[in-house]
Amino acid sequence: MIFENIAVLKADGTYLPSCYVGVQGAYIRYVGETPPAEDYGERVDGNHRLLLPGFVNAHTHVAMTLMRGYGEDMPLQSWLFDRIFPFEDKLSSDAVYWGSMLGIAEMLMTGTTSFTDMYYFCEDTVRAVMESGIKANIGRGISCFDATKRFADLPAYTDTKALIAQYHGAEDGRVLVDVAPHAEYTTRPDILHDAAELAAEHGLRMHIHLSETASEHKECVGRHGYTPTRLLEQVGMLTQPLTVAHGVWLTDDDVCCLSQHDVTLAHCAKSNLKLGSGIAQVEKYRTMGLPVAIGTDSAASNNVLDMVDEMRTAALLAKGAACNAGALPAGEMLHMGTRAGALSQGRTDCGDIAEGYRADLVVMDTTHPALCPANAPLSNVLYGAGSRAVCMTVVDGRIVYRFGEFTTLDMERIRFEVQRAVDQITAQ
Amino acid sequence: MIFENIAVLKADGTYLPSCYVGVQGAYIRYVGETPPAEDYGERVDGNHRLLLPGFVNAHTHVAMTLMRGYGEDMPLQSWLFDRIFPFEDKLSSDAVYWGSMLGIAEMLMTGTTSFTDMYYFCEDTVRAVMESGIKANIGRGISCFDATKRFADLPAYTDTKALIAQYHGAEDGRVLVDVAPHAEYTTRPDILHDAAELAAEHGLRMHIHLSETASEHKECVGRHGYTPTRLLEQVGMLTQPLTVAHGVWLTDDDVCCLSQHDVTLAHCAKSNLKLGSGIAQVEKYRTMGLPVAIGTDSAASNNVLDMVDEMRTAALLAKGAACNAGALPAGEMLHMGTRAGALSQGRTDCGDIAEGYRADLVVMDTTHPALCPANAPLSNVLYGAGSRAVCMTVVDGRIVYRFGEFTTLDMERIRFEVQRAVDQITAQ
Repeated sequence: MIFENIAVLKADGTYLPSCYVGVQGAYIRYVGETPPAEDYGERVDGNHRLLLPGFVNAHTHVAMTLMRGYGEDMPLQSWLFDRIFPFEDKLSSDAVYWGSMLGIAEMLMTGTTSFTDMYYFCEDTVRAVMESGIKANIGRGISCFDATKRFADLPAYTDTKALIAQYHGAEDGRVLVDVAPHAEYTTRPDILHDAAELAAEHGLRMHIHLSETASEHKECVGRHGYTPTRLLEQVGMLTQPLTVAHGVWLTDDDVCCLSQHDVTLAHCAKSNLKLGSGIAQVEKYRTMGLPVAIGTDSAASNNVLDMVDEMRTAALLAKGAACNAGALPAGEMLHMGTRAGALSQGRTDCGDIAEGYRADLVVMDTTHPALCPANAPLSNVLYGAGSRAVCMTVVDGRIVYRFGEFTTLDMERIRFEVQRAVDQITAQ
Repeated sequence: MIFENIAVLKADGTYLPSCYVGVQGAYIRYVGETPPAEDYGERVDGNHRLLLPGFVNAHTHVAMTLMRGYGEDMPLQSWLFDRIFPFEDKLSSDAVYWGSMLGIAEMLMTGTTSFTDMYYFCEDTVRAVMESGIKANIGRGISCFDATKRFADLPAYTDTKALIAQYHGAEDGRVLVDVAPHAEYTTRPDILHDAAELAAEHGLRMHIHLSETASEHKECVGRHGYTPTRLLEQVGMLTQPLTVAHGVWLTDDDVCCLSQHDVTLAHCAKSNLKLGSGIAQVEKYRTMGLPVAIGTDSAASNNVLDMVDEMRTAALLAKGAACNAGALPAGEMLHMGTRAGALSQGRTDCGDIAEGYRADLVVMDTTHPALCPANAPLSNVLYGAGSRAVCMTVVDGRIVYRFGEFTTLDMERIRFEVQRAVDQITAQ
């Protein structure tokens, strides 16, 4: 496949008004201003089109798309205990599969080519990932409320081991497995330590919720005498490459500590706002040297899995919260939503448009009214039309979405099965 | 026209799962759960459709859609003086017409049926309003930097008088004229006073920018010994029905004062964030009794004229800023974006779905993946698919947009003319 005469936005926001981008198999093999000598097969006319690296959703729980709108305008505790947990108690393998499919469909049609997930019934989500053609880092959420149980006694341990054995690196690396303790407050120091050992043993990345709410952050200090960040350091978790989600209440010391290790913060601006958790000072974190990627969190607290919407909200919020219009400029934000996300997944050959990179690509239609006039292509994408202008999504060189149609998914079936699953659960 | 078996969301968020809504001429004449006895002509199948009141954009400068993306990631002062003002110096009547058309097209396709505007070259914007079929309150921005000039000496006075004479109430009331002093810091107390007298003389509403930035607010206190709000009261402007835009830095005393008069605050959350102006405490204002409507401000500082995006961001921001997930619940937000906006325009028969109201309507396609599952229709609209799901827009009973096509506008021509106008201006 070759994109001809197409405008390109690279991950750092660099704009190239007219390029040839050749794709062979799963990789970008040519990027240039003149046509390549080689034949790349199918030619895609780039007239009125803009090519970007696919977006990377660095933190979500995709199956929870089932719960979109299920607990609204509620504070975190009642949202969790009155709505989400009772719903989750009734989840089936089938429901998780279809919920994952719906979330994946939404991500593909809004230009996301890869996501990092933490949830249960991971096999069903992996199945949806494999069938849909999207890319994902999957982590089985590890939690433990039984003081007599050690890590190796938990179902999450068994599940994680099975996932690693069966799926880590599957589909030419499209599926990766992370080790994913849910959070400090839902585990124990020895569990976190053992989970880190498991990750080290298999050379895996880790993924955890960190300092999302003020109370969680404070209670950890009360319990252990450390902030959640310093506790992770104590138990040895920061020796592994790690994605920490949220980080709304990180102290400056926490940020310094995280910056000294291979840690990426997955910033989930909309979820933090919607649940009233607060506003993470990502502009400060970034200038302090902590890599920041962007996540949607789940549709239950967002309510969409739309990375452009997420990047826009995060950029606007950073400016408004700092009373500084120059905070988080658009190029920096695009980098967070693409390359920084890919790196947080350990995918060093993803998240940009350059020779040798994976062909994870989004095409936008620049004739969309909200992309007119063409004063600033990058701003038009981030602040303008947003995902409404996405007309094609490519993962590992394969077209998975084009002009409103999925090549791998049956949207009508997904809608039907999701509604059926939800109706069954809520009728119980 | 009759919508059959359609789900309805009323302005206060009330959800009616299946209704018949009959439209005759410009008005809704029937709303019921059973078919009406009368024949309403064209039948619109409401299966998988959701009917809402059209959104009212309570503060914008529609012609500035020309400047979408023209000054990015810049603080207000350099944005204005280095980018916006030099561009505006070169504006032509033709450019304003096409810029207005582009902005109106974007509003119609995202479900906005009416807007309140403040700008120059108002005749050209009025022409675009009349041709496109949208509804608008138009105000000629009044500013004065010449100490020797009184209100009646200003071009803005002459223009406002001409607008009133020629267009106020035109097209069966679709076009209304407001008296629109730009702001305290761009006028003088005597100008504000005389403008209020003009409004009183003609029974018109007024529209002004108020306490948008901290410096503007403080400098007014330094200059006059009053906050901008108290100054408006002093000069007699609060005796007229009034829309105040922004109000980011209102004091509690200001809010009390405004609440005692016929004043609506037009909250522009995204523009305030993007320009780093700050975060208006609208949840507090609302509970103190100040009516709040929602505006996009211009595309130069937003960068879209999308009311669903604006409502969503405003709701999320209110929750996050207050660390309270229950702040600004979805029903309240929908009211702000519809009925409160209509009332701020003095359009008492607009902004809701009920017999006797104007047929200003939006239809959403509930098969959109981001509106699935149907756990909460209102939340799905506000936090979910957003304007991506808009499939029809009706103003005064006339279909102006349906399934991606405008019935009154030539989108390709608009894009072409807008780009040409921008290229001419930026080449100078």
